[in-house]
Amino acid sequence: MPVGLAEPEALLAVPGVLSATARAGIRQRGRDDVALITCDAGTRAAAVFTRNRFSAAPVVLAREHLAQASPRALVVNSGCANAGTGRAGYMDAVAICKAAAARLRVQFHEVLPFSTGVIGSRLPVEKVSAAVAECVDGLNENGWLAAARAIMTTDTLAKGCSRTVIAGGDQVTITGIAKGSGMIRPDLATMLAFVATDAKLAPDYVDRSLRQAVDLSFNRITVDGDTSTNDACVLLATGRAGEAEIGPGSVQGEAFQQGLDAVMQELAQAIVRDAEGATKFVTIEVSGANTAEDAAEVAFTVAHSPLVKTALFASDANWGRILAAVGRAPVQQLDIDRVGLRINGQAVLVQGQPAPDYTEAAGVAAMAPAEIHIDIDLAIGDRSATVWTSDLSFDYVRINAEYRT
Amino acid sequence: MPVGLAEPEALLAVPGVLSATARAGIRQRGRDDVALITCDAGTRAAAVFTRNRFSAAPVVLAREHLAQASPRALVVNSGCANAGTGRAGYMDAVAICKAAAARLRVQFHEVLPFSTGVIGSRLPVEKVSAAVAECVDGLNENGWLAAARAIMTTDTLAKGCSRTVIAGGDQVTITGIAKGSGMIRPDLATMLAFVATDAKLAPDYVDRSLRQAVDLSFNRITVDGDTSTNDACVLLATGRAGEAEIGPGSVQGEAFQQGLDAVMQELAQAIVRDAEGATKFVTIEVSGANTAEDAAEVAFTVAHSPLVKTALFASDANWGRILAAVGRAPVQQLDIDRVGLRINGQAVLVQGQPAPDYTEAAGVAAMAPAEIHIDIDLAIGDRSATVWTSDLSFDYVRINAEYRT
Repeated sequence: MPVGLAEPEALLAVPGVLSATARAGIRQRGRDDVALITCDAGTRAAAVFTRNRFSAAPVVLAREHLAQASPRALVVNSGCANAGTGRAGYMDAVAICKAAAARLRVQFHEVLPFSTGVIGSRLPVEKVSAAVAECVDGLNENGWLAAARAIMTTDTLAKGCSRTVIAGGDQVTITGIAKGSGMIRPDLATMLAFVATDAKLAPDYVDRSLRQAVDLSFNRITVDGDTSTNDACVLLATGRAGEAEIGPGSVQGEAFQQGLDAVMQELAQAIVRDAEGATKFVTIEVSGANTAEDAAEVAFTVAHSPLVKTALFASDANWGRILAAVGRAPVQQLDIDRVGLRINGQAVLVQGQPAPDYTEAAGVAAMAPAEIHIDIDLAIGDRSATVWTSDLSFDYVRINAEYRT
Repeated sequence: MPVGLAEPEALLAVPGVLSATARAGIRQRGRDDVALITCDAGTRAAAVFTRNRFSAAPVVLAREHLAQASPRALVVNSGCANAGTGRAGYMDAVAICKAAAARLRVQFHEVLPFSTGVIGSRLPVEKVSAAVAECVDGLNENGWLAAARAIMTTDTLAKGCSRTVIAGGDQVTITGIAKGSGMIRPDLATMLAFVATDAKLAPDYVDRSLRQAVDLSFNRITVDGDTSTNDACVLLATGRAGEAEIGPGSVQGEAFQQGLDAVMQELAQAIVRDAEGATKFVTIEVSGANTAEDAAEVAFTVAHSPLVKTALFASDANWGRILAAVGRAPVQQLDIDRVGLRINGQAVLVQGQPAPDYTEAAGVAAMAPAEIHIDIDLAIGDRSATVWTSDLSFDYVRINAEYRT
């Protein structure tokens, strides 16, 4: 059961972007597993990919294509990651891009491939190509929610988000979809996210705005510390809204960036809310650090601790495990005798020791809700960082022990 | 159920070392929870402690005492870690050392305190002191197994090991006990280990031999990546065997070191075999690395991956998860297209791709045993490292979600 998350009721169309889905029957029967997203000529695009050195074939090919041209189409399949498939898997991705390009009458390298699912299996190229052909016939402006559903793997809900912002007098739409619920950690995850906007972004701003938003969203979530082989996040900007270009640092740029950050944070948090086996949605906010990097290191060390995560699952205010994780975080400076800890507003530790008014009953009450806010104040500086994570439950083990069977 | 582990039938007495146990009723009812180990005047000692900055009170005090004198007595309790207890907890440890010193007629700073168990609870000083007094009356040469039992927390079996080696014509005995089964990771763990020998070690060799043995044993195991606040490993050398001092680099030193390494590796592996919820004992051997550090980084990244660990629990030869973990290991040099992988001798990957003769059935067969050997060949250098770990099971979650309740 996802924590405080429902499917979006509707996602706003983005002028210049079309999508459609179809059923290739790769792994999941009974639902669409291929999505096609296309965009107008002249669309500006940026993407970030997994830093895992074991990149899947589609990631390798998408990187190559993106270096040559701005994309006109994204082909996404779930059910098979096309990773660990060697040269043959790379040629499978090539074949699918070629099939899509022929149908869409665009260049081969204007198609970016994305795959998510089981590692080590080959893609059924014929079936996927046929599904892509079917998608071409069904392209429409209102296919976002269907696309969000088609790219799901162990996700229990489709994830999407739309915002409109006023930038320079023009209304701009930002719509994004994402998938992912395990193998999630900073530097992306088993996570695919596709965000489109009709904003007319300056050429040098597309990549920059994407990277800033990713840094505050997808790079701030973790479920199990595992980085996947297939992570990708793409931003498409069709430029159909307004005449003036939006650049970084301007008032319009600020407005757009806020909207983009909000969409990406909502998508990132949705992934954690739907994390495999999650029963808690946990915000870990570390303040009082000397550097933002140290704050993030402490937050991630706490977020990755299996002992903290099982205590969260048990709604057990076992603050010793939190403090032990803080104590082993790989940071330069840390004075354990200054550390303050609050859980959902309840003071637990003051200067490294139990707060005077803290009681076990108060701890139990603080840990009861499904939404947990852990505030850790290192009290040695003025920098902070926030990370979102989930708990470690029986269902996490069940889902990952049964995934292939 | 521990994996391939039974309680030792008997542990050899070490001339010059006595021990006894008693019941303070700290947390576990119905069994002894305090152990006292004493050694002759003139014993040379060394110890290594947790690197967690959040050190428990007994660790702080033991470090201080060890800097002042060689110890005459170790007081160990289970059931309460005396961690996160601030100044009051430190004074509790002081009180217990004072009580032991008075009874044993040794100096206060010749007593080292050790605690393991729940973080954040105060020690019942009166009860522990009374149990220590009882121990003093019962000191004997053959109390090792009882001591191993008294220091257990979530351990399901007592852990101990004895070896005799011939060093310089003299027979030397090495006996060790250890506890620990969760919060285990390199740089020690929720782990206490006490090793004694009658070898006459040169003064500068006691610490050196201990550190070498720890580096190849307790620093090579991981259960959940969590470093505890209370880890300690102590070596006592009474010098009662033989006349000549044993120093590093000598033939006698080599013989002794081999024996010490073997005892400590057996204890370390016993901790993993009895890891919380373990159903598999997993050896991860990484070879072909440029440096031993890189080899260890890769091995630990694989060993810590929750996805690899749940696949091990499921006996699922999900090699994609192993390769994905290798791909994200924080090492300088790695060529994923050269990586070879064998599971229990079965070739799975050759040069980053499925081995020609690999089948799913062969993978299933390779993963079936409780003892799993994962060989990862990076094929870019000639350095290697071996790490021991366990799987991630429902019982790991259950044990850690229920620990305090």
